[in-house]
Amino acid sequence: MSNIINTSPYWSDFVQQLQPYVPGEQPKVADLIKLNTNENPYPPSPRVLEVFSRDLLDQLRLYPDPNSTSLKQALAQHSGLEQDNVFVGNGSDEVLALAFMTFFKQSQPLLFADISYSFYPVYCNLFAIEHVKIPLREDFSLAVADYQRPNGGIIITNPNAPTGIGLALDEIESLLAANSNSVVIVDEAYIDFGDDCTSAIGLIERYPNLLVVQTLSKSRSLAGLRVGFAYGSKELIAGLDRVKNSFNSYPIDRIAEAAAVASIEDSDYFEQCCERTIATRAWTCEQLRGLGFEVLPSQANFIMAKPSVVPAAQLFETLREHKILVRYFNKPRIDQYLRISIGSDSEMQALVAVLKQIHGNNER
Amino acid sequence: MSNIINTSPYWSDFVQQLQPYVPGEQPKVADLIKLNTNENPYPPSPRVLEVFSRDLLDQLRLYPDPNSTSLKQALAQHSGLEQDNVFVGNGSDEVLALAFMTFFKQSQPLLFADISYSFYPVYCNLFAIEHVKIPLREDFSLAVADYQRPNGGIIITNPNAPTGIGLALDEIESLLAANSNSVVIVDEAYIDFGDDCTSAIGLIERYPNLLVVQTLSKSRSLAGLRVGFAYGSKELIAGLDRVKNSFNSYPIDRIAEAAAVASIEDSDYFEQCCERTIATRAWTCEQLRGLGFEVLPSQANFIMAKPSVVPAAQLFETLREHKILVRYFNKPRIDQYLRISIGSDSEMQALVAVLKQIHGNNER
Repeated sequence: MSNIINTSPYWSDFVQQLQPYVPGEQPKVADLIKLNTNENPYPPSPRVLEVFSRDLLDQLRLYPDPNSTSLKQALAQHSGLEQDNVFVGNGSDEVLALAFMTFFKQSQPLLFADISYSFYPVYCNLFAIEHVKIPLREDFSLAVADYQRPNGGIIITNPNAPTGIGLALDEIESLLAANSNSVVIVDEAYIDFGDDCTSAIGLIERYPNLLVVQTLSKSRSLAGLRVGFAYGSKELIAGLDRVKNSFNSYPIDRIAEAAAVASIEDSDYFEQCCERTIATRAWTCEQLRGLGFEVLPSQANFIMAKPSVVPAAQLFETLREHKILVRYFNKPRIDQYLRISIGSDSEMQALVAVLKQIHGNNER
Repeated sequence: MSNIINTSPYWSDFVQQLQPYVPGEQPKVADLIKLNTNENPYPPSPRVLEVFSRDLLDQLRLYPDPNSTSLKQALAQHSGLEQDNVFVGNGSDEVLALAFMTFFKQSQPLLFADISYSFYPVYCNLFAIEHVKIPLREDFSLAVADYQRPNGGIIITNPNAPTGIGLALDEIESLLAANSNSVVIVDEAYIDFGDDCTSAIGLIERYPNLLVVQTLSKSRSLAGLRVGFAYGSKELIAGLDRVKNSFNSYPIDRIAEAAAVASIEDSDYFEQCCERTIATRAWTCEQLRGLGFEVLPSQANFIMAKPSVVPAAQLFETLREHKILVRYFNKPRIDQYLRISIGSDSEMQALVAVLKQIHGNNER
């Protein structure tokens, strides 16, 4: 990494200051148990394979529908909303980036939790959006009352990342009601894995300031396809469309749109996969607690766990030596934790076996 | 269109002023001869179909390579440059948007031609970039000397759109040499259809201020896939990466990357398609001139033609009634022209037949 270029007279001034988001590693090593980027261990719906055809190939010479109508129709049907309540983008990261531009360039600061998706401050930096980080409680739960201050917008991740902790729907509603002049984004990348954590979609009809962001990357096993979306009032969606159409008219390609529709229509397969992950999560939490880990209550497809015997940073390295990749954040408040994605049963059994071995070695 | 929402208290101030780019129509009418968005009449390389497999489907659960390494390798090999000289994005529109952000937010204005890709002023509006439009000559050719003025960047489309006129390589080189403190983007969306118009890629080694932008949408018949790219010095590419990584870590999905690589590797098919379009263009120009049209010299997969018998706006409507869709721009200097994409031989024969019929009707 010695040849990284850190400055150039050709860059706009603000580019010199950018600290890009660092995504989880995508190592090219074989036989690795990859529990570091919250990917789904199960393949996407088999219906996705059926969309690939000679016809689709021939149509690739034509631009896609700039409005992604068929995808919006599928999402509208799935959510019980109308097409005008749906926005789609090239992954929920793009949807979030465009939403930050559209709503959060305000005279008052954007508010978000001190421990949350680490891309939020990156967007603020990119778009020169002032922001204030609101500390979570000691137990990493979010206190809605702390957001009662002048603001130009609020974004919360629910369930939160990387803690996995969920916020109850009535708390979200009180946040919306108390901030009716601000846009409140609820980033629900992991909501489908919640067992007592519910989507805020049902609140959209009553709260025109609510934008709910979701993705096909986690619960639909389509991280490799790059499709994210947002639900909100027609005026919020119209604002997003305006910015999107000034940035990139055709963000969703023809194959991605067809594959996304096939996935959304296969509800049974989707529900089965989510149930399996929820069951595996319960088993993993129990095992880790049995090994003395402190495990935060998770509503997501990952858990945040604090080891008792070895420091988290050291355990991260030891697991890597055993070809198990998890995520370690060298950041205040969470530097004693590891974030571990919920893989398949056999992957989690392999993790637990290695942890037992490490545990034994360190207790001797 | 009566229910368009034009304002909302939730939008950031600048969103109220945005005038989005209006892409060419993507009508859902069957049996239309579609010569309005410069799409390729031939399907993409058959090798693209071969990438769809059960394996690729299973891998969709995993994020793509954030660096799109295999695609950059293919483009580096194709261009004779190194991987660090290549940037990729979700269509060349996204590449251009990120390039405007990265390079053109300067204290001096960006310069571009008064008649050029109509997305440029949209990006300037979105990113608050000051710009000056430099008039093309009376014959729509570009006078490099007119760009000799203080600037924070220059972007030229070569061959130009919607005129189709090419700029010689030595003219581009003189522009680069005279503006060594500014980034000069050469937007080469249509370069592969040039017969005496050459890519500026060969100048990158000597001019660190040069960025060449290309796309798979036109000459590679992959408008529906959304893959664009840029070549430039390592410092320009590093700046683009920095902004891209602050916006969207994974802009290219796994299928798009695999399909793009397959297309790039099939040089023979690509060259055959380009040659066919160049030949059809020559035939179409000849026919239209025979019908009294004034046709600008084109190096692209479209022609800009001024009818002699009926006004362009009226001919646009008449052609539409005959199920032939072309592009009409109601803009100064070009409102007497139609932009007509080069389709297949049979499509262009159908166009010429209809034009002869209209011509006959109007001469009677």
